[in-house]
This record gives sequence, C-alpha cells and structure tokens, in this order.
Amino acid sequence: MTATLVLLRHGESTWNAKNLFTGWVDVPLSEKGEAEAKRGGELLRENEVLPDVLHTSLLRRAISTANIALDVADRHWIPVRRDWRLNERHYGALQGKNKKQTLETYGEEQFMLWRRSYDTPPPEIELGSEFSQDSDPRYADLGDDTPRTECLKDVVARLLPYWESAILPDLRSGRTVLVAAHGNSLRALVKHLDGISDSDIAGLNIPTGIPLRYDLDADFKPTNPGGTYLDPEAAATAAAAVANQGR
Amino acid sequence: MTATLVLLRHGESTWNAKNLFTGWVDVPLSEKGEAEAKRGGELLRENEVLPDVLHTSLLRRAISTANIALDVADRHWIPVRRDWRLNERHYGALQGKNKKQTLETYGEEQFMLWRRSYDTPPPEIELGSEFSQDSDPRYADLGDDTPRTECLKDVVARLLPYWESAILPDLRSGRTVLVAAHGNSLRALVKHLDGISDSDIAGLNIPTGIPLRYDLDADFKPTNPGGTYLDPEAAATAAAAVANQGR
Repeated sequence: MTATLVLLRHGESTWNAKNLFTGWVDVPLSEKGEAEAKRGGELLRENEVLPDVLHTSLLRRAISTANIALDVADRHWIPVRRDWRLNERHYGALQGKNKKQTLETYGEEQFMLWRRSYDTPPPEIELGSEFSQDSDPRYADLGDDTPRTECLKDVVARLLPYWESAILPDLRSGRTVLVAAHGNSLRALVKHLDGISDSDIAGLNIPTGIPLRYDLDADFKPTNPGGTYLDPEAAATAAAAVANQGR
Repeated sequence: MTATLVLLRHGESTWNAKNLFTGWVDVPLSEKGEAEAKRGGELLRENEVLPDVLHTSLLRRAISTANIALDVADRHWIPVRRDWRLNERHYGALQGKNKKQTLETYGEEQFMLWRRSYDTPPPEIELGSEFSQDSDPRYADLGDDTPRTECLKDVVARLLPYWESAILPDLRSGRTVLVAAHGNSLRALVKHLDGISDSDIAGLNIPTGIPLRYDLDADFKPTNPGGTYLDPEAAATAAAAVANQGR
C-alpha cells in the first residue's frame, strides 16, 4: 500500500505583492494569488490527483487557496480540518515590515539569519501591537502559548505533533491528503519527510500554487524523495524566483 | 444557558436563475448568489453573530455561500463539518427540468403536489442518467441507499439523525453553530425546531442569503419561535418572492 500526500503552498497574497513580512497576519490572496490557486486546482484535476481530505492552517490565504483549488478540481465537498500548527512561521517583530527596508536597516547578514537560519528567530512582537495575534479569537485556546516569534526549528516542533496526530491517521486510512499551507510550514514538513538536515533546509524553496505530490510507503517514507511537482517546469522557474525574493 | 443556531440558505444558483429543478445537481452560485452570500456575511459581522463551527451540505452552492459569508465575517478559520444529510431535497426525475415547462406539462395540481406536499415524491430519477448522482464519488459510501427522489418527509427523516449526532453536540458544547444549506433541508430543520405540522410546513419559505438566528434553551427549544432574521425587512420581501417562484 502507498499513501498519497499533496502539498500546496498558497498563491501570492496582497502582502507578498507589497514585499512585507506577513507571518501570522491574516491577509487575503491577491488576484494573481487567486489565479495561482485556480491553476493548482486544474493541475489536480488534469493529473487526477483527487484529495479525499483537506488540512489547512487558520490563515485566509491558505484557506482561500484550498477553497478555490478544490472547487476547480470538483473536490469542494471533501472533509476539512484546520489547525494553527499549519500556520506560516510567526515572523515576530518583523510582521508588517517591508523586506527591502529591513534588509537595508539591519544588513544582509542579520536579514538572512532571520529569513533562513534554522534556529534564530526574529525579535518577539510586542503584545497588543498592530500586527500581533494576542487578542485574535482563533488563538484563544492557546492563551499565553500563542507564539510571539518563531524560527524554522520552532515551526518543526509545533508542526510534527499535528503530522502525527491528524495527518498520519488520514494517510493510514488510505485517504489522499491535501495540505494547503505556507512556505515555512511546508518546508518544515518536507524537511521531516525527506530527512533534510538543519543546514540544507535553508536552500529549499517551495513554489506557490503548484501541487507537490509525495507517494509514501508503508512507513510513510517518500518513494519519490523530494516529491513530484504536478507542473515540474513551472516549479523549477518559480523556485528560482522565490530564492531571490526580498533582494 | 442558551445556545445560538444560525441558518443560512444559499444564494441564487445558475439554475435558480434559469428556473430549473436542481436538487442534488451540483451547480455553482450565480453572481447574484455570490453577492447574497457576501451580504449574509456582512449581516453576521454587523450583528456580531460569530459562528464557532460550520455545518454544510456536500453541494457547491451551500459550500460557496458559507465560504464567502465566513470570509466576509472574518470567521473563515472555524472548523467545518459536511454531510449529505444537509443536501437539498432530491428532486428525482424532475432534476434538470424547467419549472415552467413542468407546470405546463403536468398541470398545477400535480406540480404543486411535487413541490409542496409533505409526502409525495416526484418519480425516481433513472440510474446513469445525466442528472443522477449514482456514480458521484461523494456519495460512494451511501451505495444503493443514495436517494433517487425525495419528498420533504424523506428529508426530515434523513436530516434528524444528523441534527442529533452532529449539530446538537456542537450546540451542547456552547458553540454558535452555522448551518449553510438549502431551501428544503432548512425547512425540515425549522419544522423540527418550531414543531410545525406536516400540513403547515407547506406555507413556509426561507429566503436566501439572510442569516436566521435561533436562540435555544437548555432543551434546545427556540426561545424565539420562528427565529430572528438578521435583516427582517429583506426577509419579508424575499419570502413573498420565493412563494411565487415557478409561476
């Protein structure tokens, strides 16, 4: 028996378009992002990769991406599970800041450390500030455990319990699972799936809107390491573009 | 303790606009229907009626209505449950047929019997026909129990187990529950909630896109019998228009 896992990174948001650090700020897709989500759904349909269950973060850009893609793929009716553990990395005090300005203010080294190091989080966001989530009702159950900043290592640590307790059981039951999420929560998942080292994960970019299929063996290890993009050519082009983001 | 239940009938679909019997045929919202869903979301937000959990049918027009309304109300992130038991009444062999033509072919009496009697279903739909659901993967688990026609009594019978097993537990846990569904599945639910007789239910129309709030006591009986529309004026106007549909 093999299980099928499909990862889908949300399309461009209005803040991607403005080059702002977003993290847990709940911004909508841009028109381009909506078009990417549609294309993602077409790729699912054309390749007959038909999800039986959806997992999303609690953020609008991932939720809308999934809604649009599944509607196009005629799978809008499948069960849905949502969890904050699939959220984008919390970008701490950088949330709402311009990437280019941040680069200029703090310099290349500090900028890249915050963006790409495995274990250096940005400074914590101030409680009650404009782009903080401490009074957001969707995180009420988290209370004081609501993150105020995260590095990728933190994302791995909070994602894996959800992988174990929610996604694996769906895969075990033979379902094709779609995870619609974010650049860093998906990097965390791919790091685990492909056994990528703490240092090598810095070089991995997942393009937006292109479903990435993993075929998993009985131990839930990929039989296709690195996964298979449903549009490999577009994925290669897009990954190169993401690597240059913020420059 | 009181519990809050909110019912939302989907906005106009492309087939409503064409005056066709729809039933279980999975047609999308029209542009007008999307606008109705947005207005529904605005009413939730303006009245601070904020759902904690969503229940939908397996049909696109209810799912899209909920997605749009919850996005507008900033509640897109709540948990979702879907079930065929919230589907519209199966319209049998009438699915895909023009309402006006059906009225002319069969006459007023037969037409009104199929549309409004409590226990007279239309003829069964032919298996494998264009508008039948027998090979639809979303009903695969139902197998031979997939309906081929239904009267309102049948809808009540298949809805109530879901009310008991899925919606009531959410209400018991103190959640504000949104049910996004269809003219007849919501009539079936309202019949149960308000204790409406088999004959009186014929006269009840639920307008589209206007959230209907029920405040329920400890026994889950309405403390506001008939519920409270979040836009009572629009509801009164719309109910009158629905009553004349197909004429």
